[in-house]
Amino acid sequence: MSVLANEVIPKTQTAAVIPAPGADLEVRTSHPVRQPSELKPGECLVKLSHTGVCHTDLHAKQGDWPVKPTHPLVGGHEGVGTIVAIGEHTVGSPVGLGDRVGIKWLANSCLDCEFCRRGYEMNCPTCKLSGYNTDGTFQQYVVSFVHHVTPIPKSLDSAGAASICCAGVTVYKALKVSGTKAGDWIAIPGAGGGLGHLAIQYAEAMGLNVIAIDTGAAKKELCLELGAKAWIDFKETKDLVGDIKKASGGLGPQAALVAAAHSSAYSQAVDYLKESGTLVVVGMPTESIGATAFWVVYKSIRVQGSYVGNRQDAIEALQLAADGKVKVKFETKPLTALKDTFEEMEEGKIAGRIVLAL
Amino acid sequence: MSVLANEVIPKTQTAAVIPAPGADLEVRTSHPVRQPSELKPGECLVKLSHTGVCHTDLHAKQGDWPVKPTHPLVGGHEGVGTIVAIGEHTVGSPVGLGDRVGIKWLANSCLDCEFCRRGYEMNCPTCKLSGYNTDGTFQQYVVSFVHHVTPIPKSLDSAGAASICCAGVTVYKALKVSGTKAGDWIAIPGAGGGLGHLAIQYAEAMGLNVIAIDTGAAKKELCLELGAKAWIDFKETKDLVGDIKKASGGLGPQAALVAAAHSSAYSQAVDYLKESGTLVVVGMPTESIGATAFWVVYKSIRVQGSYVGNRQDAIEALQLAADGKVKVKFETKPLTALKDTFEEMEEGKIAGRIVLAL
Amino acid sequence: MSVLANEVIPKTQTAAVIPAPGADLEVRTSHPVRQPSELKPGECLVKLSHTGVCHTDLHAKQGDWPVKPTHPLVGGHEGVGTIVAIGEHTVGSPVGLGDRVGIKWLANSCLDCEFCRRGYEMNCPTCKLSGYNTDGTFQQYVVSFVHHVTPIPKSLDSAGAASICCAGVTVYKALKVSGTKAGDWIAIPGAGGGLGHLAIQYAEAMGLNVIAIDTGAAKKELCLELGAKAWIDFKETKDLVGDIKKASGGLGPQAALVAAAHSSAYSQAVDYLKESGTLVVVGMPTESIGATAFWVVYKSIRVQGSYVGNRQDAIEALQLAADGKVKVKFETKPLTALKDTFEEMEEGKIAGRIVLAL
Amino acid sequence: MSVLANEVIPKTQTAAVIPAPGADLEVRTSHPVRQPSELKPGECLVKLSHTGVCHTDLHAKQGDWPVKPTHPLVGGHEGVGTIVAIGEHTVGSPVGLGDRVGIKWLANSCLDCEFCRRGYEMNCPTCKLSGYNTDGTFQQYVVSFVHHVTPIPKSLDSAGAASICCAGVTVYKALKVSGTKAGDWIAIPGAGGGLGHLAIQYAEAMGLNVIAIDTGAAKKELCLELGAKAWIDFKETKDLVGDIKKASGGLGPQAALVAAAHSSAYSQAVDYLKESGTLVVVGMPTESIGATAFWVVYKSIRVQGSYVGNRQDAIEALQLAADGKVKVKFETKPLTALKDTFEEMEEGKIAGRIVLAL
Repeated sequence: MSVLANEVIPKTQTAAVIPAPGADLEVRTSHPVRQPSELKPGECLVKLSHTGVCHTDLHAKQGDWPVKPTHPLVGGHEGVGTIVAIGEHTVGSPVGLGDRVGIKWLANSCLDCEFCRRGYEMNCPTCKLSGYNTDGTFQQYVVSFVHHVTPIPKSLDSAGAASICCAGVTVYKALKVSGTKAGDWIAIPGAGGGLGHLAIQYAEAMGLNVIAIDTGAAKKELCLELGAKAWIDFKETKDLVGDIKKASGGLGPQAALVAAAHSSAYSQAVDYLKESGTLVVVGMPTESIGATAFWVVYKSIRVQGSYVGNRQDAIEALQLAADGKVKVKFETKPLTALKDTFEEMEEGKIAGRIVLAL
Repeated sequence: MSVLANEVIPKTQTAAVIPAPGADLEVRTSHPVRQPSELKPGECLVKLSHTGVCHTDLHAKQGDWPVKPTHPLVGGHEGVGTIVAIGEHTVGSPVGLGDRVGIKWLANSCLDCEFCRRGYEMNCPTCKLSGYNTDGTFQQYVVSFVHHVTPIPKSLDSAGAASICCAGVTVYKALKVSGTKAGDWIAIPGAGGGLGHLAIQYAEAMGLNVIAIDTGAAKKELCLELGAKAWIDFKETKDLVGDIKKASGGLGPQAALVAAAHSSAYSQAVDYLKESGTLVVVGMPTESIGATAFWVVYKSIRVQGSYVGNRQDAIEALQLAADGKVKVKFETKPLTALKDTFEEMEEGKIAGRIVLAL
Repeated sequence: MSVLANEVIPKTQTAAVIPAPGADLEVRTSHPVRQPSELKPGECLVKLSHTGVCHTDLHAKQGDWPVKPTHPLVGGHEGVGTIVAIGEHTVGSPVGLGDRVGIKWLANSCLDCEFCRRGYEMNCPTCKLSGYNTDGTFQQYVVSFVHHVTPIPKSLDSAGAASICCAGVTVYKALKVSGTKAGDWIAIPGAGGGLGHLAIQYAEAMGLNVIAIDTGAAKKELCLELGAKAWIDFKETKDLVGDIKKASGGLGPQAALVAAAHSSAYSQAVDYLKESGTLVVVGMPTESIGATAFWVVYKSIRVQGSYVGNRQDAIEALQLAADGKVKVKFETKPLTALKDTFEEMEEGKIAGRIVLAL
Repeated sequence: MSVLANEVIPKTQTAAVIPAPGADLEVRTSHPVRQPSELKPGECLVKLSHTGVCHTDLHAKQGDWPVKPTHPLVGGHEGVGTIVAIGEHTVGSPVGLGDRVGIKWLANSCLDCEFCRRGYEMNCPTCKLSGYNTDGTFQQYVVSFVHHVTPIPKSLDSAGAASICCAGVTVYKALKVSGTKAGDWIAIPGAGGGLGHLAIQYAEAMGLNVIAIDTGAAKKELCLELGAKAWIDFKETKDLVGDIKKASGGLGPQAALVAAAHSSAYSQAVDYLKESGTLVVVGMPTESIGATAFWVVYKSIRVQGSYVGNRQDAIEALQLAADGKVKVKFETKPLTALKDTFEEMEEGKIAGRIVLAL
């Protein structure tokens, strides 16, 4: 084991704990810190400075997804901090003590199975998911894994980098598999939200023309400022499909990035997409994808599930942010505000992203 | 205009006519033949010897799809015959008088729009569909289009080639977009049917390992004889998903080619597919694709609509048949048997494919 | 045949004629204009306002390429003008009288052969090449082909659009097949020249980071102004390969777009490219590609020949220009200046692109 | 550290050692065996039963490639054996004691760098190459790496599996990147040799039509027996390019897999390939690729360097052999025959592959 020089690792810390599925969140001030001597080979201890809050954290809390989280659980999967210890007998670590790194949803994967070999690390059957089946970033010290933490480029500040580690990576990867090229149109429902406002920026960085779909004057201003070429207020339009087609020049956009909670968003996308287009699904409602086989076939549509990102995707997403092409709009709060943040999130009240200082 | 030497074009012919949506089929013996002098530039008259019968012909008859056929209508879109006349002022025809050609579902497309330029000819907004919005192959003489008829390789007999022109092309194209490579496993529900038995053969020609799913001893024998590596009787299995995963070595097949009429087939496929796998949709039920967004995302699944094939796909599908890799199992009947064939089709009684001699 | 209302087609015009391979260019003021009644089906007469001049025009003049041009010849293949007549019996023209269109290198292709069906229209064995095996744009009226002329978006002026039709399309297509994605680095030798300055802009529009390689203060200023992230003066650097690697962050760029006249540029690119990178070849020297098999294999390099563009590529390249992402730097001259332009071109004196007003 | 039960690891063994670049091979009977206690984390000791001999081993011996081997060196990189020990503190090994595994050219890579993350493990800057910069398989016990050894499927015998580990993987990967699909034609110069006879079989397993090019009646018989659709004797033909084009139906094959020692093979391939075709380079002569830029561009040719294979490629190549689709033609000899084998190899006398029993 090795520990960062002059670094004192406390025995306890502040952490937000979910004791059981659906139970209230408890912010505990004397939650144990796993000590450097207790780290296994390949593990590292990261002293976190910031963590983002993501809608998925609500599912971790409720335990309402078909794949179940472990409990008691410390949630959170968008953290940034410094490596202060590395487990003994760790071999070939690509990161070192003192490195600033990000913690993403995919905390670890075996790197040996078929999925890891083929770059589908998120589909590794033994993968560890931050804040879901291994303790995450709603605490001051997190145990993570040297082969999966993501180095943070120097030009990015930690608070701004946090949300890139999940929200940013997720939309970046979704765009990467969207089958689009520079000059194509893409529809982004929910463009003014946490995922959406990052999706606009990544899309623009790829040379795509964004049709931002959301509601309200504030979100309209944000979307257009971030580079969207067209804005559609879904509450004001009388013909959403028609307006989207028109905005794209008549034939419809080549892709739609849908992070919706309701299945109607999927069937709408099949309606407005250009023939041969791609519907990228990043939201994870347990409802059916409400698209009829007839239209999917007749229009040669591709429906592509895109699940977070792998190590390479995370590095690329952070690099584009470091290049100045993507900036997270966020508000910083203390860890104690997590409970309220969850409530506001359930009520759909949050614009941009919330980042907690730890 | 030009006419094949020594060929007498009759004024009337036998044709199976659908007078109106849902009306009874009428086999008329004095249906008019469009005369060579009436052909427009780019049109040709094909004297048909054979036509296949496809499930889509039932929808043309009933008019029950969201995209409506024209009526009165001569159905049929799997024909083989000889070009006996070509319209005046036709320029640059790739086929000539006397050529044996196939008529496929996609009778014509403009070759100029974005979709045609990009190879998505079937998505051309002005395309002509045989036996759907232009008269098809349930007649002795059909008007078709020189830029879209498909030359039939010499080594193929006309009766055997007919069903390749639609059923063969459709499954070939579906496999082409399935994201598989030699050595991969693919599940084919309905493997013993008209589409399925061709899909097995095309899949084997590509080096795929087929898991044939269907029911009954006769279909089992057929599927295994055609090269399927595994057979699963969906009526006998107690755990369809588990059996398919086991047959593929544990992780599930990389792709599924689903031509089902019910949406449950799609959600099942998402269950048994390997993570990162592709569900190719070729059936056109107007029901929703019954797959939840959660699993499509979590398993990184691609749902790919595949709609018939373009000119190049048709030529490739026929060439593989000409190379001896694919043989249609069919029974030959006279055109007058079409009505009964439709009834048997609706009752699911037909094994392999029906070909009508004209 | 149809002729634009109120348009008088003269019998003769001014044209620059190459009488024989290697012979002096003759600007003739009474060169015949093919009359509307003489147009074949599918042909159109375009009244040109502007034409670009391209290095390839020198090869058409000299006849020094392995594939020989026809002579006497009117060269030129970057023209913009208005359709004033369309040949009789033309069917299904996607353009009409009065449309402003561009003439590209690929004047026509059959749209029926395997290459056309697969989108490789430039490899059609019966294709017509503007100013090479069919008379081109160094004249006031050119006969072209309705299925291949490219509509010019309204927001582009004709002089500015001319060079997009060949130089723009060529570099756009080269980037399209370069295997890069947003955030990747690309090296562009000759970045300050006719092709190069457009390549920088298209690359930036795709989100690539450009390393511009050329020489001199004027070209440096131009390249950086157009968005290049790094500049290397090949005459000043003592370690071209090392400097390019350093500029890209150490590993070397993912791609190089090489339009060089000498084979050393190819072997250099193999040296500085990142492992797994792509060398796109757009120049057409008759020298060998000077890259050793050892390094191409050991570094997993792809060498991709990219030859102009097809109809879809041309439309996309023009659209990006119409969107304001690409602007041609050019100087306008009269047709009579063509001879001098050729001489300056041979001496390598031209910065940007020359456009002739007709 | 862990050692296979009841397994006695000797202190010394028989090994073929190259003392220095170009020096004579020495078969030493008391070469040291690295003991289990000396293994580092991630290392394993493999008791070899067989090793293939590859042309690359000659370069390791001579040290005549631009990238230099280490010396003294035990060569060899196609070994099969059993894991008898694993280094202490090894974490997450995908293989265990007693597993039968293959040793390939790529002995190890970091699995963390950009190349490893993207699947280009062979381009990892810190990779270990068997029998080149780390001791290889011309010995009875080799130290290898748990994350890179390849499990051998049960149905394969060890002698037959050995050559798949390098020659098989190399041609399999080359075909995988060849851009071909079932029904396409591929030219394989040297089809009767060690790489070639495996390439025929892998190509056939993918549904390709092989044009085998080599010389002599014995090789002709072998190639046709293995499934080649056409045979061309390069010593007898008067028009190699014409004959290859004719064999493929006129347009030329879609791909060529060239493992040649001379650059003329590359320029020939550019001549006979179909427009839009791919020349896969697997040979590693230090000569220039003798293809002119003009034709590479004009024919839209892709020249793809393909360098061995990664972990996934190796598993796939072995699985196709286990499925019965590929069989190595080899002759078994003792390790003491290695020196003579090298001489015969240099004289081009070897048909198929040599496997040494250890």
